Amino acid sequence: MLYSTILAGGSGTRLWPLSRACEPKFLHALTGTDRSLLQATVDRISPLSAAGQIYVVTGTAHAAAISRQLPAVPAANILIEPSPRDSCAAVSLACAVLARRDPGALMAAFSADHLIGDQTRFVEVIEQAAAAAQDGYLTTVGIRPAHAEVRFGYLKLGAALSGAARTVAEFKEKPSRELAASYVESGQYLWNAGIFVFGVDAFLAELARQRPQLSAGISRIADAWDGPGREAVLAEVWPGLEKISVDYGVLEGAAAAGRVATVPADMPWSDVGDFDSLGESLPADESGNLLLTAGAEVIARDVKDAVIVSTTDRVVAVIGLDDVVVVDTADAILVCARSRAQEVKQIVEELRARGQDSCL
Amino acid sequence: MLYSTILAGGSGTRLWPLSRACEPKFLHALTGTDRSLLQATVDRISPLSAAGQIYVVTGTAHAAAISRQLPAVPAANILIEPSPRDSCAAVSLACAVLARRDPGALMAAFSADHLIGDQTRFVEVIEQAAAAAQDGYLTTVGIRPAHAEVRFGYLKLGAALSGAARTVAEFKEKPSRELAASYVESGQYLWNAGIFVFGVDAFLAELARQRPQLSAGISRIADAWDGPGREAVLAEVWPGLEKISVDYGVLEGAAAAGRVATVPADMPWSDVGDFDSLGESLPADESGNLLLTAGAEVIARDVKDAVIVSTTDRVVAVIGLDDVVVVDTADAILVCARSRAQEVKQIVEELRARGQDSCL
Repeated sequence: MLYSTILAGGSGTRLWPLSRACEPKFLHALTGTDRSLLQATVDRISPLSAAGQIYVVTGTAHAAAISRQLPAVPAANILIEPSPRDSCAAVSLACAVLARRDPGALMAAFSADHLIGDQTRFVEVIEQAAAAAQDGYLTTVGIRPAHAEVRFGYLKLGAALSGAARTVAEFKEKPSRELAASYVESGQYLWNAGIFVFGVDAFLAELARQRPQLSAGISRIADAWDGPGREAVLAEVWPGLEKISVDYGVLEGAAAAGRVATVPADMPWSDVGDFDSLGESLPADESGNLLLTAGAEVIARDVKDAVIVSTTDRVVAVIGLDDVVVVDTADAILVCARSRAQEVKQIVEELRARGQDSCL
Repeated sequence: MLYSTILAGGSGTRLWPLSRACEPKFLHALTGTDRSLLQATVDRISPLSAAGQIYVVTGTAHAAAISRQLPAVPAANILIEPSPRDSCAAVSLACAVLARRDPGALMAAFSADHLIGDQTRFVEVIEQAAAAAQDGYLTTVGIRPAHAEVRFGYLKLGAALSGAARTVAEFKEKPSRELAASYVESGQYLWNAGIFVFGVDAFLAELARQRPQLSAGISRIADAWDGPGREAVLAEVWPGLEKISVDYGVLEGAAAAGRVATVPADMPWSDVGDFDSLGESLPADESGNLLLTAGAEVIARDVKDAVIVSTTDRVVAVIGLDDVVVVDTADAILVCARSRAQEVKQIVEELRARGQDSCL
């Protein structure tokens, strides 16, 4: 029996103007179907966890929209943080609440905004990771790098374990371009995909060992969660919790102690980090164009390898351009060379600097 | 005393989605100021003709908008055609009405949707053309070609006349690319800019000689124009008028009879035929970008030689593209390589074929 926790946070500024602070990317249908990234994540894990075994951790801003998008997930499994305290607090909260509801549970943690191209392989990989987790390891999924990406952290492979798993010798932060290339060439490094499987007791033991204060705070909150005192304890304890990622906060230290495993996975995976990677992640038409529209009439005349996204019913006409991103929304449009898609983040910063908060 | 008639017809499909059947290009502020092309045309001719000497010929669709945009032009000078019968009927109507109001008048005819870069030279050229018109010639303005354009007709230069004028040996239709290049190289051809100056009596005499039926119909209409029978006569006569351009209908034949002159003009002139030529016609910023917006926030990051037009208040963000056209309107957006700007016409045809009439 595997539980799955979906971490639904972050706004995805590189996907502006589609993704907004008030409507982050995981709520959008960026999947090539009418399912949102969040719903596609639930669909993907449904062979592994029944709806009652699925948890979501999110903030106050999006809890209502998430609850509507996932009607099968019990309301008690939607854990709402009063404020963002980074991923270590989020994962720890889910573990601690679950440990009290079902001691000894195994839990997988997923991001709400990833795309994975091979469903069968995905289920296999998570089952292999669960086997390593049952042996006591905090287990990550490592993606065989498709190219020398500098936006991701890397895992350095260690010793072989039983089954498909290996230990993780070391976590590596986002590398330089040269370092990333050497990682890929060596064959000894995997992308850290932000997918984890572990026994909740094993995780909480590492949390207590490495982050005793955070562990104590989370324990107090979890003890109160399913009783009348939840809001009072949250109000008292939550704002003081250490703000740190789960990688830095627990997994790096656990790896140094030989307690982290990984399952190398050769499946198509994308964090949908920008419109270019979105275009790489989804099937294109015969001209290489990806069209994600909600009823807009699109006319592309001599256009190749474009990513065209629309949330409106306006006509979108594109003529004689290759490798271009065109995004049309109610209050902003973006036209961008695909190779420059990461710079959308700077546009958002520029808009904020100009005081154009209404379209952020 | 020079009268000026502005021909305000045509929709400008190459400027879609800005220019629409219901809001043609001459009503838009494509001038780099808040004046529409039509208003800029009136501003340009104001040193030549007082407001009371300015006429407009247009159709029923745009007469109201034109009347509002040009409050100084007397209502009696706004001549409204019941239906489009091409430019020969339009020019003839203005001539015939004017001939009855002020016999012996000199009249210049202009398009409502041209841009001219040198106001001083423009006034000089029209005054030189008026001098030739006073000598009895139907006089055109010929633009020294800036390049081998295939979208325009050409005038072949003939004998020298007094002052700056030359006779026109021949009118040439829109040429092939090779022919256009040979025209430019020879130095003996000018662009036919669609600007004419003539005595109304001289024009009407040529009309009567070459197009007796059209002439008779126009005469009947003009006789009734300023009396109670205008609408009845228009209803009876107008639909049967010959549909032909003023070039084919009168000027070519007049040239063959040695009655057409031209003033060669070396001033910047554009018919604002598409977004590329619009970009050529107006001053750009230091990056070569032309921004025509009505309050939209534009962020251009590493963008050169772009034409960005917006009629909305949406944010327009462009990243890492050169020589691109971006047009944002309420119900359609266009993203186009500048070199392909003429193909916008095909987009309009495609939309019509798809039944998307609402955005045409």
